[in-house]
Amino acid sequence: MPRLVMKFGGTSVATVERIRNVARHVKREVDAGHEVAVVVSAMAGKTNELVAWCKEAAPLYDPREYDVVVASGEQVTSGLLAIVLQEMGVPARSWQGWQIPIYTSDAHGAARIAEIDGSGILRGFAERREVAVVSGFQGVHKETGRITTLGRGGSDTSAVALAAALKADRCDIYTDVDGVYTTDPRIVKTARRLDRIAFEEMLEMASLGAKVLQVRSVELAMCHGVRTYVRSSFDDPSDPKEGTLICDEEEIVEQQVVTGIAYSKDEAQITLRNVADKPGVAAAIFMPLAEANINVDMIIQVVSDDSVTTDITFTVPAAEFERARKILEDQQKAIGFSSLQGATDVVKVSAIGVGMRSHAGVAAKAFRALADRGINIRAITTSEIKFSVLIDAAYTELAVRTLHSLYGLDRI
Amino acid sequence: MPRLVMKFGGTSVATVERIRNVARHVKREVDAGHEVAVVVSAMAGKTNELVAWCKEAAPLYDPREYDVVVASGEQVTSGLLAIVLQEMGVPARSWQGWQIPIYTSDAHGAARIAEIDGSGILRGFAERREVAVVSGFQGVHKETGRITTLGRGGSDTSAVALAAALKADRCDIYTDVDGVYTTDPRIVKTARRLDRIAFEEMLEMASLGAKVLQVRSVELAMCHGVRTYVRSSFDDPSDPKEGTLICDEEEIVEQQVVTGIAYSKDEAQITLRNVADKPGVAAAIFMPLAEANINVDMIIQVVSDDSVTTDITFTVPAAEFERARKILEDQQKAIGFSSLQGATDVVKVSAIGVGMRSHAGVAAKAFRALADRGINIRAITTSEIKFSVLIDAAYTELAVRTLHSLYGLDRI
Repeated sequence: MPRLVMKFGGTSVATVERIRNVARHVKREVDAGHEVAVVVSAMAGKTNELVAWCKEAAPLYDPREYDVVVASGEQVTSGLLAIVLQEMGVPARSWQGWQIPIYTSDAHGAARIAEIDGSGILRGFAERREVAVVSGFQGVHKETGRITTLGRGGSDTSAVALAAALKADRCDIYTDVDGVYTTDPRIVKTARRLDRIAFEEMLEMASLGAKVLQVRSVELAMCHGVRTYVRSSFDDPSDPKEGTLICDEEEIVEQQVVTGIAYSKDEAQITLRNVADKPGVAAAIFMPLAEANINVDMIIQVVSDDSVTTDITFTVPAAEFERARKILEDQQKAIGFSSLQGATDVVKVSAIGVGMRSHAGVAAKAFRALADRGINIRAITTSEIKFSVLIDAAYTELAVRTLHSLYGLDRI
Repeated sequence: MPRLVMKFGGTSVATVERIRNVARHVKREVDAGHEVAVVVSAMAGKTNELVAWCKEAAPLYDPREYDVVVASGEQVTSGLLAIVLQEMGVPARSWQGWQIPIYTSDAHGAARIAEIDGSGILRGFAERREVAVVSGFQGVHKETGRITTLGRGGSDTSAVALAAALKADRCDIYTDVDGVYTTDPRIVKTARRLDRIAFEEMLEMASLGAKVLQVRSVELAMCHGVRTYVRSSFDDPSDPKEGTLICDEEEIVEQQVVTGIAYSKDEAQITLRNVADKPGVAAAIFMPLAEANINVDMIIQVVSDDSVTTDITFTVPAAEFERARKILEDQQKAIGFSSLQGATDVVKVSAIGVGMRSHAGVAAKAFRALADRGINIRAITTSEIKFSVLIDAAYTELAVRTLHSLYGLDRI
C-alpha cells in the first residue's frame, strides 16, 4: 500500500475550521488507498505567543524550558486534527515527539533529529488502518527524556525525517504557495511554477533565499532520497492542483541549464582597506569571526596599487553585521588594516541549475547582461551548480528580471 | 530537610506577572530550607479555550485526544514557572506527568492516579537542590503511554498524591481564598476561618458543597495522612497570612461539636406517590437509576393512610433530574406508582463535625431551630459526623445562618 507523509504549516491549521479542511485533504489520500502520517505545526500565532511569554518570564530563558513551553503548540493541533479525522470516520491518533519517539540531540531550541522509531506508527497502519497525526517541530532527548524542539520551521524537517523513517513513497509539504517558482513571483510577474526540481537545486534555492522550504529539510530529503512534493493547502481538497516535486536529477527529463533565480537581502558587505599582503592575514581576519559563529560567505581580495597592501571584501549575514564590525575593530592592530567600510544595502542574486555542470560560460553571460543594464557587481561566488553576485539593493528587481529572462525562464 | 509540595491554581498563574508572584512564594520556602515541588494548573481561561476547541472539532470527541489537547495548558505554566524561578536564582526544572511518571488509569478525562515514581524529583532535590515544577492535572497510562488527565480541578489531587509519593511534610494548596471557613462567607458575614479541620470533616464539607478543595484530593490526603494547608496565593509573599490546616483529628486540640455548615444547590427532589408497599419495590425504583449512573442521596419512605401504598421521596443531582424522571416514567408500570412529583428549587444544608460522634441530640436541636423559623424540612440524612436537611431553596441563607449561630460558629 503506498505510504504518504503530509505536512501542514501554521496558517493551514490556524482555526478548527481550517483544521477541518486539512482533514479533508488527509481523507482524500486515505480514500485513495494511502497509509498516511500527517505532521502538523502549531496554530498560526500560537508559537509567537508562547515565545513572548518565555521572553517575558526571563530574557535569558533556559532553552530546555523554552522547548517545554513552545512544544505545547503542536500538541494542541495534533489532538484537534485527530478528533476531526475521527469525526469524519477516518481512524486517527495523535503522536507527540516523545511518544514515537523522535530522538534528537540535546541542542535545545535547535535540536537535530538523531533517530526515529517508526514501529508504533507502522503498527497503527497495519492493525487499525490508523492515520498518525504527528506533532511537528518537537522531539525528545534519549538520555535526559526532556522535550526538544528543532527550531523555527522545524516541522518541514520533522516531516521529511519521518518520511525517511517510515520509508514513505512521498512527503507532501502543504504550504501557502502552490509550489516552487523559477523566482519570487512577487517581483517577477512571469515567474513559472516548476513541475520538478532536483534536490541539489532546491538546496541551493533554499540556502540562497527562496523561503518555500527549510534548508535542513531539503538536505535531509536529498540524503535519504525522500521525494518531496510542495503544494498548496488552500486548494479545494476534492480537486487539488499540481505542485512541485523535489526529486533526483534522473527523474527530470527536460533539464534546463538554469532552473531558478534566488535573491537574499540578508547580506552585509565588509571591506578592510590596506591590509598587509602577507601570509596569515586571512586567518587573522576570519578566525575571530568563525569563533564568534559568524558565517562569512563571499570573499574577494584585490591587490592595491602599492603591491604591499591589499583590500579584502567579504559578506556576513546582515543580522551579524554590527557584531562582526566590532570584533574586527577590536582586532584592528593585530590584523593591521587602515579602515573598515561596511554596506548593508546590498543583495545577493543567484542563478541555480544542475545543467551548469555541463555548460560553460553560463555565469559570464550573466555578468555581461548585468553590466549592460548598468548594474555594478561588488562580489561573485560560484559553485558547480550556481553562481551568485552581490549588487546594490536598489537593483534587486532589475537584476532578478534580467537573469530570469536571460535563461529563458519567463512564462510564455 | 523538610519537604514541601506547593500547589497554585489557574488564577494564581493567569499571567507571567502572577507567575512571578508564585515564584516569590516558592523562593521564600526554598530560602527557609525546604525541598520544594510545585504543582501548577493551566493559566486561567486556557483550559476553557482548549476544551472549546475540542468541542468545535467534534461534539463527541475522543477523550484520549481531548487529554492531549487539554494537558498542554499545564505544560506551558510549568515551563514558564521554571524559567522565572531560575531567573530569581532558584534552580528549577519542569516535569510533565509522563516524565515523572505519574501513572494513571486509562479513564481518559477523569483518570485516577495509580502510581507515582518520585525518584527523579528526589534526585533533583538531593543532587542539585532543584525545585520540581510539576504540571498538575495530567498523567500517563502505563501500558499505552498516552497522556491522561484527572478531570477538572485535578491539580489538587496531583498535589496531594505527589506529597504522599514524596513523603512531604506538608502540602500547601494556594487558592483565591485564605482558608476553609465555618461556612460560605458570602452568605454569612460572621463566618470564621478555621485554623484546623479534621480530614473527615473536610471530606464531608467538600462533598456537601464547600468548593475550596476537590473531594478526591481530600480523600487522598486522608488515606495517606497528608497534612494539607489551604492558604491564599494573593498574600504578600514576604509576609504570608495563616490558612487552614487539614490534619488528623488528634492534632486538633479544641474540637467543636460542629465545625462547619455547608450547602449545596445541586439537588433535585423526586417523589413517587402511591407506590405499592411490597418487598422489592425499592429495588425496582433504584436499580434502573444506579444502572444509569445516577447517584441517589436522601431517601424517605412514608407509609400512607391506606397502609397498602407508600410515598417514596429521594434526591438526585440537579443535572440528572430530567434523565432520572424519564427513566422512572418509562418504568411506571413495572414499579407501580400513581404519579411522579419533582422539585428542583431545593437545597441541602449540612452541619459537619467529628464531635457529633460523642454528642447526642445535635441534629434534633437543629430541627427545632429550623422549625421555629418556619422552615419546612423535606428530607433528612445523617451519618456519624454530619446531618443534612433538604429545604426549599428560598430559605437557604436563613437556614445556614440559623445553624451557624446555633452551634456557636459566629465570629465574635
